[in-house]
Parts: sequence; C-alpha cells; structure tokens
Amino acid sequence: MKFFNLFFLISLSFSIAVAQKNTAFVDPFIGTEGEGHTFPGASFPFGMVKLGPDCEGHSNSGYISNGKIEGFSHTHVSGTGGGAKYGNILVRPFIGKSTDRVSATAFSDEVAEAGYYATTLDQDKIRAEMTVTENAGIHQYTFPKSNQSKILIDAGHHLFFGDQWGEAQQFVDSEIEVIGNNAVAGYSTVRHGWNFGGAYTVYFYAELSKPFIGFTTYKSGKESNKKVQFASKEKTQACLSFQTKEGEQIQLRVGISFLSTARAKHNLKSSLGELNFEQVKANAFNQWENILSKINIETKSEAEKTVFYTSLYHSYLMPVCREDENPKWKSEVKNYDDFYALWDTYRTSHPLMTILTPNRQVEMINSLLDIYKHEGYLPDARSGNDNGRTQGGSTADIVIADAFVKGLKGIDYELALEAMIKNAEVSPGGDERKEGRGGLSDYNTLGYVSTDFERSGSRTIEYSLCDYSIATLAKGLGKNDLYQKYLHRASNWENLWDENYDSEGYKGFIMPRKSNGEWHSDFILVNREADGGDTIRFNEFTTGYWEAFLYESSSWEYSLAIPHDVKTLIKKCGGEEILEKRLDTFFEKDYFLVSNEPGFFTPFLYTYMGKHHRTVDVVKGILDQEYTTARNGIPGNDDSGAMGAWFVFNAMGFYPNAGQDIYLISSPKYPSTTIELGEGKTFTVTKDHPERTYVKSAKLNGKPLNRAFLYHKEIIDGGLLELSMSKKPTQWGAEQLPPSLPKTNL
Amino acid sequence: MKFFNLFFLISLSFSIAVAQKNTAFVDPFIGTEGEGHTFPGASFPFGMVKLGPDCEGHSNSGYISNGKIEGFSHTHVSGTGGGAKYGNILVRPFIGKSTDRVSATAFSDEVAEAGYYATTLDQDKIRAEMTVTENAGIHQYTFPKSNQSKILIDAGHHLFFGDQWGEAQQFVDSEIEVIGNNAVAGYSTVRHGWNFGGAYTVYFYAELSKPFIGFTTYKSGKESNKKVQFASKEKTQACLSFQTKEGEQIQLRVGISFLSTARAKHNLKSSLGELNFEQVKANAFNQWENILSKINIETKSEAEKTVFYTSLYHSYLMPVCREDENPKWKSEVKNYDDFYALWDTYRTSHPLMTILTPNRQVEMINSLLDIYKHEGYLPDARSGNDNGRTQGGSTADIVIADAFVKGLKGIDYELALEAMIKNAEVSPGGDERKEGRGGLSDYNTLGYVSTDFERSGSRTIEYSLCDYSIATLAKGLGKNDLYQKYLHRASNWENLWDENYDSEGYKGFIMPRKSNGEWHSDFILVNREADGGDTIRFNEFTTGYWEAFLYESSSWEYSLAIPHDVKTLIKKCGGEEILEKRLDTFFEKDYFLVSNEPGFFTPFLYTYMGKHHRTVDVVKGILDQEYTTARNGIPGNDDSGAMGAWFVFNAMGFYPNAGQDIYLISSPKYPSTTIELGEGKTFTVTKDHPERTYVKSAKLNGKPLNRAFLYHKEIIDGGLLELSMSKKPTQWGAEQLPPSLPKTNL
Repeated sequence: MKFFNLFFLISLSFSIAVAQKNTAFVDPFIGTEGEGHTFPGASFPFGMVKLGPDCEGHSNSGYISNGKIEGFSHTHVSGTGGGAKYGNILVRPFIGKSTDRVSATAFSDEVAEAGYYATTLDQDKIRAEMTVTENAGIHQYTFPKSNQSKILIDAGHHLFFGDQWGEAQQFVDSEIEVIGNNAVAGYSTVRHGWNFGGAYTVYFYAELSKPFIGFTTYKSGKESNKKVQFASKEKTQACLSFQTKEGEQIQLRVGISFLSTARAKHNLKSSLGELNFEQVKANAFNQWENILSKINIETKSEAEKTVFYTSLYHSYLMPVCREDENPKWKSEVKNYDDFYALWDTYRTSHPLMTILTPNRQVEMINSLLDIYKHEGYLPDARSGNDNGRTQGGSTADIVIADAFVKGLKGIDYELALEAMIKNAEVSPGGDERKEGRGGLSDYNTLGYVSTDFERSGSRTIEYSLCDYSIATLAKGLGKNDLYQKYLHRASNWENLWDENYDSEGYKGFIMPRKSNGEWHSDFILVNREADGGDTIRFNEFTTGYWEAFLYESSSWEYSLAIPHDVKTLIKKCGGEEILEKRLDTFFEKDYFLVSNEPGFFTPFLYTYMGKHHRTVDVVKGILDQEYTTARNGIPGNDDSGAMGAWFVFNAMGFYPNAGQDIYLISSPKYPSTTIELGEGKTFTVTKDHPERTYVKSAKLNGKPLNRAFLYHKEIIDGGLLELSMSKKPTQWGAEQLPPSLPKTNL
Repeated sequence: MKFFNLFFLISLSFSIAVAQKNTAFVDPFIGTEGEGHTFPGASFPFGMVKLGPDCEGHSNSGYISNGKIEGFSHTHVSGTGGGAKYGNILVRPFIGKSTDRVSATAFSDEVAEAGYYATTLDQDKIRAEMTVTENAGIHQYTFPKSNQSKILIDAGHHLFFGDQWGEAQQFVDSEIEVIGNNAVAGYSTVRHGWNFGGAYTVYFYAELSKPFIGFTTYKSGKESNKKVQFASKEKTQACLSFQTKEGEQIQLRVGISFLSTARAKHNLKSSLGELNFEQVKANAFNQWENILSKINIETKSEAEKTVFYTSLYHSYLMPVCREDENPKWKSEVKNYDDFYALWDTYRTSHPLMTILTPNRQVEMINSLLDIYKHEGYLPDARSGNDNGRTQGGSTADIVIADAFVKGLKGIDYELALEAMIKNAEVSPGGDERKEGRGGLSDYNTLGYVSTDFERSGSRTIEYSLCDYSIATLAKGLGKNDLYQKYLHRASNWENLWDENYDSEGYKGFIMPRKSNGEWHSDFILVNREADGGDTIRFNEFTTGYWEAFLYESSSWEYSLAIPHDVKTLIKKCGGEEILEKRLDTFFEKDYFLVSNEPGFFTPFLYTYMGKHHRTVDVVKGILDQEYTTARNGIPGNDDSGAMGAWFVFNAMGFYPNAGQDIYLISSPKYPSTTIELGEGKTFTVTKDHPERTYVKSAKLNGKPLNRAFLYHKEIIDGGLLELSMSKKPTQWGAEQLPPSLPKTNL
C-alpha cells in the first residue's frame, strides 16, 4: 500500500502549494435543474464508478434538485435524455426499524465538488459523504446516537424512468451475501433503458469500517436471517444494524466490477488500499486537476471560471473507461463504454479530447473498433456493454475521420475504413435503431431515404456527412475509387432539397420525399401514443423524435446543417446575400435551437461567407446568456458533456468542424487562454481589449493571419494566436474563406 | 431432505418391481463414432447438466472414441456439427505432481447408461463414475493408494473445435475460489462456437466428500497459493491434494448455474440434497424411464430395442430446460436453450415431443416466443442464450404451425403470428446468419432469392414452406387476408424451378437465378478458404454450406423437398409416372442423402401418388440398414436427436409432415407398438405378419382405413391401427391420397 500513500503525499503537497486549482471552480450542481440532467455526485474523469444520490421519482442522473433521496448508488450517466440507465447497488443509511427502509427523505446542506458529494438526510440527521476512485467508492456516514442505526444495501435497485416511452430499465436478477460481520457482496442485473441494451451486471463488494451487530436480508421484500440470498430473478437487499454514538462515523468502502464480486473486491483493495476518506477525496480532486489544468483562462470572475471549468468537467464524465472489464470478450484493447451518444459528442467532446488528451481519444477509437471486430458494427451510442441507439447517421465514422485528419497515431485505419464501409453498405435490418444505418436500401439506390422510413430527413443529411467522412479516410489511405464513390454520396442531402419550398420568403428546404421521387407535401407525422399520439402535417417548423421526418430539430435547422459542403449550401439557398438574411431570420426569430446538436455549427456559416462578425454576434450571445452558474445553467441536455465542450471551445475562441482539419475562430471570452499540450508546448489565444467583441486583425506566432480559421497542426504544435479587437464589426476573415467541399482539404 | 429420500425409495421400489425397463436398452455409445457426434455422458431428459468426458483433440460432444481423456466437463450438446459448443468446468482426477495436470490419458472399461457414465483412466488407474440431476452432477473417483492423489478443477476449459471454419469457441474470462477445505466455486465465460453466440457464463459450486489436505490455484498456468483467482480475463484452475487408500472413493458434487455461484450452490443442495451416488443414478434412470416408457415395442430382439430406445433417448437430450436460469431477462416463462437447430428438429423431434410430451412442447414454444418478445426474433437455432445460426428458413414458423394444427393449448398464437410475420417481413440485415431471413429484399420483391445472396436456392424453398406455415396459422386465426398473402408466397419455390434443366432425362430442377430473372447457368460456387477455397460451377449434384446455392444438399434432393405442395411438384415434374421414375432413380442411384434433413420426407412422395409400397421399400431399407447398435450406427450427425426421431416415427409405422395435421403411414418395424398418451389412453399399431413388409389393408379402431395417412386426433385420442400385411407390393392407400396444397386441410 506504500505506493498509494506516497502518491497521496505528493499530490497533497502539490495541492497545498498552488492555492486555487482549476478544479476548485467545478460546481457539479450546474445543469442539475432544467434540462441539463447532469450528475452531481462523485466521479473520476472517465470514471466507471459514479457515486451519487438517487431521488424519489427518479431521473436520468438519479438526482432531483430539492427532491427526496432514496439512497446513494454507484453507477450513473450524465446529461442524457430519454429513459434512465444504471443507478445500481444503492446504499441508504437510516435510523429505525428495518421496515422503514423504503421511504425517501428530504436532504439539505449539500456540497458537491469534483470527486466528492455530501448531504444531510433530514429525516434521521445523518450526514452522508462520498468520494471515489475509478472503480470504487467510499461512503462516510455520520450518525446520531442511536441503537437503531442502519445501513441498507439494495442489490435490486435501479433507476426507473422513461417507462412512458418504453425506455425504462427492466430488472433481471440480483443476489446479496452477508460475509462475516463487516462485509456484503452481490450483484444486480438489469436490461434496457434508453439504448434498449441487453442485460448488464454490476457486481459489488462492500466492507464496513465497523462490524455490524445484526443483519436482515430480503428477497422480494420478504425478511430473512439467511446470509445468502441467491439469484432467483428477485430483488435482494441486506440491512445492517449498528449502535452508534453521537457523531460516530461509519465508512462503507465499495468496490465495483462488471466481471464478478471477487473482482469487485480486488478493485476495492487495489484502488482504495489503506487510503482514508480524505486521501481518496484528494486523489480524486487531483485526477480532475490533471485534466482541468490543461486549460488556463485569465479572468478575475469566479463565475466565469466556474462556468468554464464546470463545462470542461462535464465533458470528461463520459465515456467511461472500464479497462479490461468487458464481460463479452477478451481483448488487449481497453474497454470504454457509455458512448451516450456519439451523435451528441462527435461535434465537440471528442475534438476537445483530441486536443487535450489525445491518448485517451486513441483508446476510445480503438475500443470502438474492438466493438466492431467482436460485434459487427461500430456503435453510434453504447451503454451497459451494448450498442444502441442510432439516432441518425453512423457518427463513429466522423469521430474516426476526425482522428485521421488530425494525425492521431496508434489506430488501425484500414480496419476503421472497413467498419465505416460496413455502416454504409450493410443494412442492420431489424436492428436499425441499434446500430448501422436504417433505410439504407433507399439511400443506396435512390440517393435519399424516402418517407417509407422514419427519420428519413435527418438520416439522409447525416448519412451524407458520414459518407464525406468515409471519403476523407479513403482518400487518406490512397483508395481513390472509394474516395470518389463516397464523395459523390456526400452530396446526397441535395436529393431532399425542395428548391420550391418557401418559408418567410426563403426558398429551398429539406423536405419529405416519397420513394417514387415525388415531394411528400402531405406528409403526416404520427407521434407515438406515449407522446400524445397526435398527428401533425409536417412543415418546416415541425420537430420530432424517432418516428419523425427530422430527429430533434426542424427543417429550418436541418436545412442549414451541412458543415461539409457549405459552398453548395450557399448556392442552394440562392447565394451569400440571401443565406445571410436567412441566417439572420433564423437566429433573430429563434428558429435556432441553441439547446441541441444539429444547430451547433450553424453560427459559423457566416464565417464561410466572410461575415465573421455575425458568427461572433451569435456565439457571444450564446456564451453570455445560455451558460450560467445556476443549477439550470445549461441549455438543453448536457449530452455527456457535448454542450459543455461547445462552451469550452467557443470560450477559448475557436470551434472545430468535426471530421475536417479546421477550427473556425470565434471570439474568445477571456483576455488570455492557454492550453497545455504536453512536452512543454502550449497554445495561447489572447485578445487585446477584453471588453471588445469583434476581431480587427490577428497574428499567429507573430505573423499576420488573414483567415478566420486554424488548422489542427497550428494548435497542436503550440503557438500564440493574438487577436486585435474592435468595438465595431469588421471585415476580418473575408480575405481567405474556410475550405468547403468540393474545394476541400482532401 | 426427507422429500428426496422418500422419492428415491418410491422410485427404487418401482425400479425393482419391473425387471427390464425400456431405459435399460439405451446405449449412449451409439452414434459416438462416425458422423453421429452423440454425447455418451450422463444427462437428464432436457438436462441442463450434461456431464461427460472431454477428449484430447476435442469434438462436438467432447468425446472421442478410443481417444485420450482430458477430464470430465459439465455442459455439452449432442449430435451437432460445425464448431463445438460448451465443455465448461472440467474436472480431472490424477496421481502425481500438480504439474502433470495438463496431460490426457487413455481410458478403458467404459460403461454408459441413461444418466450414468464410467471409465477407468489408464495412466493412474482411477475409476471415474458420474451421474446427474437436471442441474447438478456427482463425480465418484476411486483412487489407488497414493499420497499424491489430485483433483483438478479447470474453470478455463472449454471445447475448442472448428477453428478452421472460424467457428471455435473463444475464451473470455474465468474465476476460481477455494472455500474452506472441501469446496471450490467459480465460473467460466466463453463466447462463439458454431452459433457465433455472445458470451455465456457457466457457474459452479463443488463440494468434496473428503477434505483436501492441500491446494494450488492457477492463473494463466501460473501457480499460486491464493484461495481466490479473481476475474481478469485469464484461465484459472484449482488443484486439490489428497492422501488416498487403495480403492478409496472421493466424490465431487457439483451444482451448475447460468446465474451465479450462489445459485449453483443452491442447485447442488436442492437437487442432490443428501442423496448418495446410487440414489442419484437411480433417479436419473427413472427420469428417463418416464419418457422412454411412453412407447412400448413388441420385439424379442435386444438389438432392435437398443436401436429404438437409444433413438428415442437421443431425441430427448436437447433442447435443454434451464427453468428460470436465463441471465438475460426475468420472465415467468420457463427458459429452454440449445435449439440446435430447429432447422434439424422441426421435422421429427418436435412432432415426436408433441405426441409424447405435449406439455414440454408447449413450454418450448412459449420459450421461443419469450425470446421473440425480448430479443426481436424467433431463433432458428439458439445456444448459450443467443440466437444463431439460421441455416435456411425461419423454421420456428413450422414448429408453431405444427403445434397449432395439432391443437396444443396454452400458446399465445396471436403473438406467434406476429413473430412469424416479423420473420417474413423484416430483414435481419447484417445479422442474416443469426436470425430472421436473409435475402428478404429479393424474396419479397422478386418472389425468389437471387444469386446476389448466399444459399439462395435452399432459402427460397424453405421460405416457401415457412410462408405456408404462416398461412396455416393466419387461416386458423381467421385472418383471411394474411392467409391469402402467405399462401400465395408458399408457391415461391416455383420461381426457381428451371423447367428446361435436364438431368438423366428428367426435366425441371431448382436452379440458380439472377436478380434480373435470367437463369444463372454459369453460377460459380466459391468455397470458403477453410473448405479448400476451390471454385465449382454449380450443377444439379453440387452441395455446399453457407456460401453455396443449396445448403447441405443437391438440387436433385432439394427439387423434391416440397412437402407442402406435392400436387404441384408432381405436375412440375411431368406427372406421376415421370416423378415415380425420377424417385426410383433418386433412391437407386443414391442421389438421396439419407444422412441429412432435406431428404427426410422424400420417401413419402410415393404415397402421395398412391404408391405406398414404394415408400415402404425405401423406409424399410433405411430402418434396417442405416440404424444399428454400432458406435457408428447413425447416418450423419444425429442433430439433437432429429435422426433418432426419424427412426422412432418410422419404426412405429407413421411419419409426420411437419406443419400439417397428417402423418404418413409407412410400415411398422415391430409386430406391435403402443404409445402411452396419458389419462389411460394408448395408441397402438399392429401388423399381422411380422415378417411382411407391405400393407394389404388396414383398420383404425375396427373400421377399414383406405388411406395411408392419419390425422393427429386419430393418434392422440388413442386407438388401434391394425395393419394387415402382404408379402408383395399392394395398391393400398391409392384410394384416398394425402391432402396437398391447394387441396389442403386449411
């Protein structure tokens, strides 16, 4: 155990030396109200264990602000929508008879920090604190004086939310065993949830700092004095009894595993060792500081730091790294799970990780390829060891192309191309919400997905972008035939462009089309019963979900979401002047949905037409108004940190066009931002007048920069981008426009 | 434990009362040589635990006649081909240093009975005996005098066979724990095998009758004194040491579970209880007698009894019943696994179970529907909790239609129809070898599967039959539109009938066709590399496997395999006279593959043309020549008992046309055969001159029967079929021909 103690002492001394670390500005409560759905509990970066409160009524993160707490469970996701996932192995301290165990309680005096969560359970005045490692957690409960102090461990618990959409988790099995007088082990098997995944099993091994004086076990609520409640497809629990003095602390140290209870015990011993609560807490903090110290922003505003570092923090909660703990196959490749969903994260989170933690990004892509090798398809989303769901395109294609154009090494790109071509060519059939591309028979024959299939509009648009990614990789690997083939398909979005459709004087919209080629002007969207079952005649403002023509956005939004071929988009819209006006209308009339991914890139279209100042107007508006320190301070679901990463990029002053080797310069939020790139390299963005918005001129490493975009190499090799600011809009960036298909950088 | 003792005493006294039970004639070695691939070890009917020897070199059943034994493992299948499955948790007794543990040994003095297997391991002169319950086993090892007696438990072992076809199992994970001085627990996780299934886990809990005096554990072969070798994706073992006197017996009692080690312990305790080896062995025998006593044949020939009851025994080894032990979901429906494969068993095994054990047949169909409900597709084959593979049609359709026309109650036929229509309408896409129907896009548009897809010939033929099953059920449920639709599709086999193709003077064969409608006379079959990688120009004699036009048979065979529309087949072949000659050629020139399912029904085509005596000629030839008491006494793979069930039916004197409510009468092998139908009902078939082959006339319950077929009700309600025999061929049966589409009994 010496290693851990030593490690801790080094970390701690470092922690004391530097006063205010970036991690100190993390506020995990941001996004826990409203639609953010962020997880406020304790986690490592990429942490497999996410220990936090589960509240009555349940939610995606388990947590409900001002709700009532049922207990603290060890597995969660952050920022997701739809049916909830995880919430396994719940622990609840309480006072009273064991039959009181089911009630939830109000809570107060909450504290949440990176790697730490604490609250007081009001009913019994028990202080509950918790911290974690990557695969274990410590609960520290401070009890009042009582001879009826209890700790309930519920192996049958899981989050149950989303049943109205058929997306709730389903209990499969559980088991619990009381071992000696100070340990409990068992597991919980659960299936489904948002991704409709198969059964996953979470094993635990829990040790108590104080022997219990009695125990009761339960199977389907039936009390027993049996030490073992073996697996029989029923919910099992163990309730441990203690006599406590006033203020007495009992710790529960819990190892978690996806393989076995013995492995959970090993994880407990190897990651917690002899470390005490404060040491583990400090270690978790330092793990976060390793990430968050990679970007330093210059600002005196604590609120600004809080928003920035919390956004960055959110981007590193998921995916989770499970090392070799994939129960489905043996592989030398590190296992990552909870890609939830790449559809959300390919645009911002993964490009951000590519800059800050490229080795992790390589590991994640290799894990995706390992999934392809063993299960036949790259996931578009994955959780609980199972692919699902695919919302639109096969967006792992874009993640891979992004890695390739940015020169990430250590990836088998030939295998990756094979996996991407599988997406493009082999229909997943009945599994079309699970993986691959649905409606492929249409897309690969008609050049678009017809209204015979659901989500035919957003699918067509996203498949085009995915095909562009395939073309990119094929070109890079010297496969010209494939390049030509998929570059051609990358224009397929045009096949759903109804040039005569007119909205508010603007012509040309992505609209529904029948398989016979006719426009489907009477297209009826039938909502599922769970959504009210209403029928709507589709128009340019209609949004919807799975059964819709466009997934989660309107045609106003999707028609402008062509990041790989802006040049053609401009032409289709009637030229730069008309598109500029159309964008103005789009943003001014709030047709833009700031809270959702399809619009992430739209503000940058101005830059493609030499109107950098208009991009800046829109981006600045979002940065200033939509992201705050409030508990509802995130627009929409945080989506595994995709929203947070959008903020981080734009606050730094540049934004990636995922799958391409370019970043669009916006307007940095702070006077100076520095990225630590390792090996002593840094990339710094400065602006000379902090209060000014527009860019007048720029210098990159001392040389004038007349373009409003950067190449990856210019960032990753280190350097200095100096922006000279103006109070008024400028023409900067108009001289050299960003590349766009077919004048691509391919 | 009183229950068990009482049960045993009752069973035992019954066992003593009746001298020669039918089960005494079971010889599990039949089929263990040649292509039979039968499992000779100990099993219950439908038993989850199949405890038997695994031999060096490995095979589908684990066993190799005259091979060398590596040890005894707890899970097996019987009669399968392709890559091996299971062989989990291997136990090997030996004498010597623990490092000797890897070698295999010759064996002798074998005994195999229903529920019992014994052999002597020559190297160390250890007698190994074993018997089972449904979910546990007992090993009884008689050691020589030694202070180096060992029992190795290998949690990493699994059968490894079929790698040359990419069908071998892959190790995933294992764990082992030595508990106290007389128990060992752990698990083995393995994936793939023939069905390319996902990971399955077999848990065990083993108790020894004598405490061990020492142990060594292993992880990836590395010796250790650790009690626990926790899961880390490595192979783990435990080797236990004993001092034994000459002839000392050590018993290892092993519970098996698919849920957990605690459940395995529960299974051990609840099914073995305090029963001793002989009691468990007697109980297993009685379990078999419960099945095998359902048919009594009259013959003085021990060999005839041996062939008959062993055939019946083989039919009940699989599928296996795992009660609630399905780790993937919670359900009230009993879980059955190892449908391996329905493609093999729908014709004979399931119809046989429908007569003898209808409740079991209902349970199996409900399990199939439970799989559909939870995973989206009915399996065509399933093993290790995963669907796969589909060889041709979606033959669960036929199993369900067969149950429906035979009036089985307790099945949700509306749900079943939904599942069947899913097969028929929703392509499984990239999963087309796993479940559903591949090439569906062709089949549902062109009316046949074109050579764009593999196995397009056998698929088209089998889909037609499956569609006939859908039509049957739809009609029965009063859904006339669906009935008409699928009845129409049931004729799709005609679309691959090349009326000009001529072989040996016979015109009209199922031949390859391109998607543009042209016959593909230059169709090249490219064998996979594993099969030699050769290319063959397809003709009417070509057979093949996955990549072929016809799966496992030739066009000579498949062109006659239209059991649901014999009337049209006759017409297509040029009339009765020509088809009769063609059948004569087919059987006389050995174009008929007696060892494989596609030809199972072909002998009965004669009966559809009023030539019952020719059916009898062929069937009698097979019964007398192809099934013997020899170790290679089964033609081809036994296929989970499908071959055995073919024998049982025809030896009784009638044979089902699966999916239809009729049985074709052949010629019984014995003077009298009686089926016990329960509730005091019996159905008996007699023939008046045992040595004669042909039927001159028949009486059913005393009334003349002028047709050579029976309806299910005529059997299941009980009765007497008296056949009056002739030495010479007769015209019996020509008066009323069996029904055939479109003159069906629909």
